Amino acid sequence: MKIEITDINLKALFLGDKGENVDIFKELLLKMIDEHVGWRQNYQPQDTPVISPFDKSSESFNNTVDHVRSVFNELSSKLRSKSLPWHTAGRFWGHMNSETLMPAIIAYTAATLWNGNNVAYESSPGTSEMEEEVGHELATLMGYQEDKGWGHICADGSIANLEGLWYARNLKSLPLAIKEVAPEHVEGKSEWQLLNMSTKEILEIMDKIPDKLDEVKAHSARSGRHLQKLGKWIIPQTKHYSWLKAADIIGIGLDNVVSIDVDHNYRMDIDKLEAKIRELAAQEIPVLGVVGVIGTTEEGQIDRVDKIVNLRDKLAKEGIYFYIHIDAAYGGYARAIFIDENNEFIDYDKLDKVYKKYGVFQEKNEWLTEDIYNSFKAMSQVETITVDPHKMGYIPYSAGAITVKDSRMRDAISYFATYVFEKGADIPALLGAYILEGSKAGATAAAVWTAHKVLPLNVMGYGKLMGASIEGAFHFYHFLKDREFHVNGKTIKVYPLTKPDFNMIDYVFNEVGNTDLGVMNKLNHDFFGHASYAKGGLYYNEFLTSHTDFAVPDYGNSPLPFVKSLGFSEEEWAREQKVTVLRASAMSPYVNDKEVFDEYAVKIEAAIQTKLETIYNDYQQA
Amino acid sequence: MKIEITDINLKALFLGDKGENVDIFKELLLKMIDEHVGWRQNYQPQDTPVISPFDKSSESFNNTVDHVRSVFNELSSKLRSKSLPWHTAGRFWGHMNSETLMPAIIAYTAATLWNGNNVAYESSPGTSEMEEEVGHELATLMGYQEDKGWGHICADGSIANLEGLWYARNLKSLPLAIKEVAPEHVEGKSEWQLLNMSTKEILEIMDKIPDKLDEVKAHSARSGRHLQKLGKWIIPQTKHYSWLKAADIIGIGLDNVVSIDVDHNYRMDIDKLEAKIRELAAQEIPVLGVVGVIGTTEEGQIDRVDKIVNLRDKLAKEGIYFYIHIDAAYGGYARAIFIDENNEFIDYDKLDKVYKKYGVFQEKNEWLTEDIYNSFKAMSQVETITVDPHKMGYIPYSAGAITVKDSRMRDAISYFATYVFEKGADIPALLGAYILEGSKAGATAAAVWTAHKVLPLNVMGYGKLMGASIEGAFHFYHFLKDREFHVNGKTIKVYPLTKPDFNMIDYVFNEVGNTDLGVMNKLNHDFFGHASYAKGGLYYNEFLTSHTDFAVPDYGNSPLPFVKSLGFSEEEWAREQKVTVLRASAMSPYVNDKEVFDEYAVKIEAAIQTKLETIYNDYQQA
Repeated sequence: MKIEITDINLKALFLGDKGENVDIFKELLLKMIDEHVGWRQNYQPQDTPVISPFDKSSESFNNTVDHVRSVFNELSSKLRSKSLPWHTAGRFWGHMNSETLMPAIIAYTAATLWNGNNVAYESSPGTSEMEEEVGHELATLMGYQEDKGWGHICADGSIANLEGLWYARNLKSLPLAIKEVAPEHVEGKSEWQLLNMSTKEILEIMDKIPDKLDEVKAHSARSGRHLQKLGKWIIPQTKHYSWLKAADIIGIGLDNVVSIDVDHNYRMDIDKLEAKIRELAAQEIPVLGVVGVIGTTEEGQIDRVDKIVNLRDKLAKEGIYFYIHIDAAYGGYARAIFIDENNEFIDYDKLDKVYKKYGVFQEKNEWLTEDIYNSFKAMSQVETITVDPHKMGYIPYSAGAITVKDSRMRDAISYFATYVFEKGADIPALLGAYILEGSKAGATAAAVWTAHKVLPLNVMGYGKLMGASIEGAFHFYHFLKDREFHVNGKTIKVYPLTKPDFNMIDYVFNEVGNTDLGVMNKLNHDFFGHASYAKGGLYYNEFLTSHTDFAVPDYGNSPLPFVKSLGFSEEEWAREQKVTVLRASAMSPYVNDKEVFDEYAVKIEAAIQTKLETIYNDYQQA
Repeated sequence: MKIEITDINLKALFLGDKGENVDIFKELLLKMIDEHVGWRQNYQPQDTPVISPFDKSSESFNNTVDHVRSVFNELSSKLRSKSLPWHTAGRFWGHMNSETLMPAIIAYTAATLWNGNNVAYESSPGTSEMEEEVGHELATLMGYQEDKGWGHICADGSIANLEGLWYARNLKSLPLAIKEVAPEHVEGKSEWQLLNMSTKEILEIMDKIPDKLDEVKAHSARSGRHLQKLGKWIIPQTKHYSWLKAADIIGIGLDNVVSIDVDHNYRMDIDKLEAKIRELAAQEIPVLGVVGVIGTTEEGQIDRVDKIVNLRDKLAKEGIYFYIHIDAAYGGYARAIFIDENNEFIDYDKLDKVYKKYGVFQEKNEWLTEDIYNSFKAMSQVETITVDPHKMGYIPYSAGAITVKDSRMRDAISYFATYVFEKGADIPALLGAYILEGSKAGATAAAVWTAHKVLPLNVMGYGKLMGASIEGAFHFYHFLKDREFHVNGKTIKVYPLTKPDFNMIDYVFNEVGNTDLGVMNKLNHDFFGHASYAKGGLYYNEFLTSHTDFAVPDYGNSPLPFVKSLGFSEEEWAREQKVTVLRASAMSPYVNDKEVFDEYAVKIEAAIQTKLETIYNDYQQA
């Protein structure tokens, strides 16, 4: 009997802030271990065990086991004294981490006992099939056509982004290679036109010349040629350093990276994007590609992917084409909140009804705007997307992933002809020939596969978990907004940076009346010191957060409206050149429950009060 | 009381071919789980558990748990029906996999409960410290100076190799950048001279201009310029496809990859290497770097690193310098077999005494030659080395690593100034700024750290495990050599490819009297079919192996002496263009025991006989 679960209880999927579900954890873990051991015992049961009872009672054996036990005492002590309490229901409001899904942890451990290497199907049939399944699920989640999209797990978002850039670079160079190898297919096209062919056009030509595939590839960017012709790689001003690394590694270089200002919502300014592309085009400088971000690392903001896509389509009519890669490492799984049981993207005006039906939000959906909805919806229109299971997939590290709109694109980066795909199964015999990495844990695929089975990638499954996280984030946002603390006769107020696009809240403390930006920055930096590992005693800390700096070299003047809204002058900004903000990725799956949140609100208010008092007392004594 | 263990019993470190040590496995795993749960419970014990007894007895909770249980039934079935029996003591002679160290599996699982992300110290103090420790241990294992060397864990060997090439590319470009930014430091040098400066010279100049570091970096290869000037990247003819990918990704391109023939031992031909470098120099084409391999993927052979190093030093006197990267992904851990308790490289003539003292070999050390010894010894003289814990480190996937001879080299690829290193601790605050990847599992570091604590990286620890694997491989080698099978009146003989340099044995079956190379290739390919997943029924298969093809496009005529030794003519080779060989990475930690091997020898002989009979019967019926 298989029952369709429409009312998943998220509390059954985590170990629990106090380990409440350790009974279930042990039950399933031990079951998997026992079933594994049974499998070992029954593989050629005529073979007697190689480790005999005499071995096990020998002195050296027992000394070795005691030695191992001692090492585990040391390991346990180190882990318990130097780790972060992500698991707390309501006291950790910092880094992008939290409890992870209990089934994923168990599945990872179980699969490790078999230790498949998904680099090749031959050495890991079971987990290779799971990775292929997971890749297709993620591609479908992104709205890619089921028979065309593809995806795979990779080490992390930086690797996925690098692979996206590799796709873009090699694809963009194909027309130059075709011109050299099969010029009749691009007859009459200028270099500018060759460098502005759409991905679709390129793939259609490639389809026509299967016998020249290897030769065309040999003439592409993989040869080392053409790299400096391919144009600019455009990223948002909130640029993550992984994009600088990626441009360095891939050889197009930092000189070809262009960043576009963000608007006051910390989303890429699409007008400025268009202006920049037109400015480049006027100089016949092509655009290799544009990166949009779904869930920026520092602010959790959602770029207007729909507008980037519309711009691409508009400019295409003018003979300008750019590749789009979406870095949805953080926010990608949140697309599940828009997907119904039939993998259809739900109409905007039907969402509230669906959310009510499945209990996605406990109180209300105050989060969603049409902007955000449209951004998520348009993801299906881009070439590649990074989406990390180890972020909003609630999978333990390391599990990144990339999805590809059209699996034919693989030929731009592959190292073997397509015949190494198994017939029919569409599973590569050597996955390593189609991805950036080589050897890779089958266990990661098992963990993600299990999580996707437990929580389907739609509104009933992951959507519900996303809702819980976002609703909890909004509770925290309202808790912070305009809250005042009174310390030594002074009033310290809290100001969130923006209404969040997702589940991340950036905020600052400022003393009422303070007009010195340096003083505010110091206060927030000091607060971070008391709410992080920096001062030691992590395990006794009652409120934890993270911090970041928005400084002119990276952010330009984008923070200025926020800074001015706090009463600082433009001169202050010009002098200080940065604003230090506190940053909370609200991933706890528990504080969507308003009662739970309110219980913690009292505690974290008191903890913040104590920290501020300590800081102000230190100031007085200094 | 801490006892120094000088007599480690390897049988206490694995789960066991029949799960014999499941008691110890469960004991330690449950201890770690309980200690983790206790930690959760006692972080702010005033917080009541968020998952209440009422939650746990609710219908939705119990339905969800049943749903999870069903998913685990499916997972368990998939793993048990589509996985490989690496764990068998003596029936798996194929891919580079085996049992992995039980303590590593447990440590990984334990650390996953805390789920640290080693990208930043702040989010994972404990496991970040473990990674730093492990990195230094591996650097020391490679013979790098303790206060200079550095290393870190990465996803796999392909990523480590790519990172090595990234180091080489950016370092090699620094003199061109210095010429642009601080020309007084390279005054009078021609471009040829700039491109032939040694790593040591480059780092010494960089040390003199700390205030110009960022500007020099901005003018280096990371800008996207200079890439085509840097010269050729030289790899052995046995080129692993990961090197082609790496050259593609890093932007120097396949056109700049040069491969050097291997000799009849499948090691890089150093005379040909020298000739090629001189030929390039005569055209003023620099050599970006040379890759040597310690443990080739297909043959397990050991390149003459000492000769590569000597060649570099000799040519440096003529103004020609090249970077050396050693791909010791497979064989790197084997350097432990030469390291004594004080981290000193043991003298060649003292080795047998030491091996006897610590029981490294049960019978005799027939493996080692002075060539191999010198190759391992010279590793300390090269810039970067890949060494994968998930290969001969017996750690579960995914755990690769790279080591760096001089930590100052990091500046060539880093994204932040050195101040982000914690004072004194020498641990990067943001490891992600110094490596190719970003987010990474702290659990991997915990697994490797625990394994290194259990088995120190010297002759008493990992050395003993390496010895067990090599001795087992030699038992298999002798078992195969000249063995005959009689089927349907025909005699089929087994021929190993070479005396192995390490623990990998390549071999072929050939029918006595057969002079048709195609027929032999078919026989071995068919044999593989019956000794792998290909024919299904993996779990019932009594003997498993892997295979590979040595074909002219990759190997040139290197296999010709072997092929001729089997009685085939040169014409046959010219017609067939390849030889199909069977391949066994002998990683079982149990079959060094001759009694155990002999028990299995009877069984695998019978299994091979049966497979050959099936194949020949099929031939007859066809």
